[in-house]
Amino acid sequence: MHIALYQCPPLPLDIDANLARLRQQAATAARQGVQLLVCPEMFLTGYNIGREAVQRLAQPADGPAAAEVARIAVHSGVAIAYGYPERGADGRLYNAAQVIDAQGQRLGNYRKTHLFGELDHGMFSAGNAHSAVFELHGWKLGLLICYDVEFPENVRHLAMEGAELVVVPTANMQPYDFVCEVTVRARAFENQCYLAYANYCGAEGAIHYCGLSSLNGPDGHRPALAGAGEGLIHATLTRAAIAQAKGLNDYLADRRERLDRP
Amino acid sequence: MHIALYQCPPLPLDIDANLARLRQQAATAARQGVQLLVCPEMFLTGYNIGREAVQRLAQPADGPAAAEVARIAVHSGVAIAYGYPERGADGRLYNAAQVIDAQGQRLGNYRKTHLFGELDHGMFSAGNAHSAVFELHGWKLGLLICYDVEFPENVRHLAMEGAELVVVPTANMQPYDFVCEVTVRARAFENQCYLAYANYCGAEGAIHYCGLSSLNGPDGHRPALAGAGEGLIHATLTRAAIAQAKGLNDYLADRRERLDRP
Repeated sequence: MHIALYQCPPLPLDIDANLARLRQQAATAARQGVQLLVCPEMFLTGYNIGREAVQRLAQPADGPAAAEVARIAVHSGVAIAYGYPERGADGRLYNAAQVIDAQGQRLGNYRKTHLFGELDHGMFSAGNAHSAVFELHGWKLGLLICYDVEFPENVRHLAMEGAELVVVPTANMQPYDFVCEVTVRARAFENQCYLAYANYCGAEGAIHYCGLSSLNGPDGHRPALAGAGEGLIHATLTRAAIAQAKGLNDYLADRRERLDRP
Repeated sequence: MHIALYQCPPLPLDIDANLARLRQQAATAARQGVQLLVCPEMFLTGYNIGREAVQRLAQPADGPAAAEVARIAVHSGVAIAYGYPERGADGRLYNAAQVIDAQGQRLGNYRKTHLFGELDHGMFSAGNAHSAVFELHGWKLGLLICYDVEFPENVRHLAMEGAELVVVPTANMQPYDFVCEVTVRARAFENQCYLAYANYCGAEGAIHYCGLSSLNGPDGHRPALAGAGEGLIHATLTRAAIAQAKGLNDYLADRRERLDRP
């Protein structure tokens, strides 16, 4: 599967403008043979926008913005993963991400379970469920959002459920560069899966994003790695790389579920 | 607490010679103000020695070699963590590590739970219990051995039990350099604890060790990092570094024990 990550500065409070640049990026990605395009956390609205704006801009997972993302996916022939503020049927606001395939089908929707500090807690309710593991082009995918990936339990769960690619829209800022540089590589390596970490660059209010979006491979290498600026990075996932990693040692097979107390 | 890691080539099949160089290193460490000296996996006998040699050289955790390590610890005033082949009371052979303090007391003994490939499986039975978390100079310590640390569950367990320093004798070889360079840093960072990873350098039969022993800090930095050759590296652990890391975000507090099925 050929995958692209779109690293960009947030474009706050303007869903139409974000859909417009998504349309443009999807077209570019299509020309590169990309089958899945991953955008950052809260891509449709920007991230550091405050509770009132989230309240105003949040939509259901199958709302009008999702319908427009589906049209972009169908038109470009590229599946799209993106973050957005979700208005739940329960009236709550969630920091969500979903994948819509090139047939316009919503494959998976996930609500961030590990909220980050006052920023997230000020805007959102926490999701309480793992992402489903779903198929795209024969690959098994799962979703996490930003801070979620910093907990090894979350990636492990998806890998145990069969995920070969963990898709992680993020909005990771300074001084947390370590997560971009080290943590996400360790997550892919320790689960012998791919992990796509699509981040913002630039600033949003007092927040300075790290950039450094990456596709992390099952052997810890990074087939695609962004720098500090805006751009579309892309690379190919191969089952051979997963098999090669598991040929050296198989973490999921060697893992022991329970050990005794000392 | 001031800690040192002794990175060296294995000295196979010669317990007396290994005790002799331990005595020398402990004396050097004492002059540097070191309170805990950590040696690699199977330090007393070498690691790639085969089942027959393990059968011949293995000793109980309180056997004559342990008594001599205790004398070295008392004489130097430095606590010692080291790996060795343990002959269990059950007659089984374990890949073990223990810590003996400067009063000569055995503080903790641990049997490797995650055996690595044919190498370990050919020589050892797997331990079935976590390391206890025990105190040294007011710090809470836990033990892991080599491959164990590559499973995030194992370090997490010790951190949840209160470990502030995870001591990891290892024998990590090419092509697994990634573990030295990335994994152990991620483990310390994601648990906001220290992690001491004491490795071999040089060769032992067909095995080429990575060196790159490291003390990894709660913020992902490495206060001490060895290169490819023999040497004693040392650094100071501070509670301030742990508090500073947890001040940015507290992983153990933010971790969610259980999530719903999707």
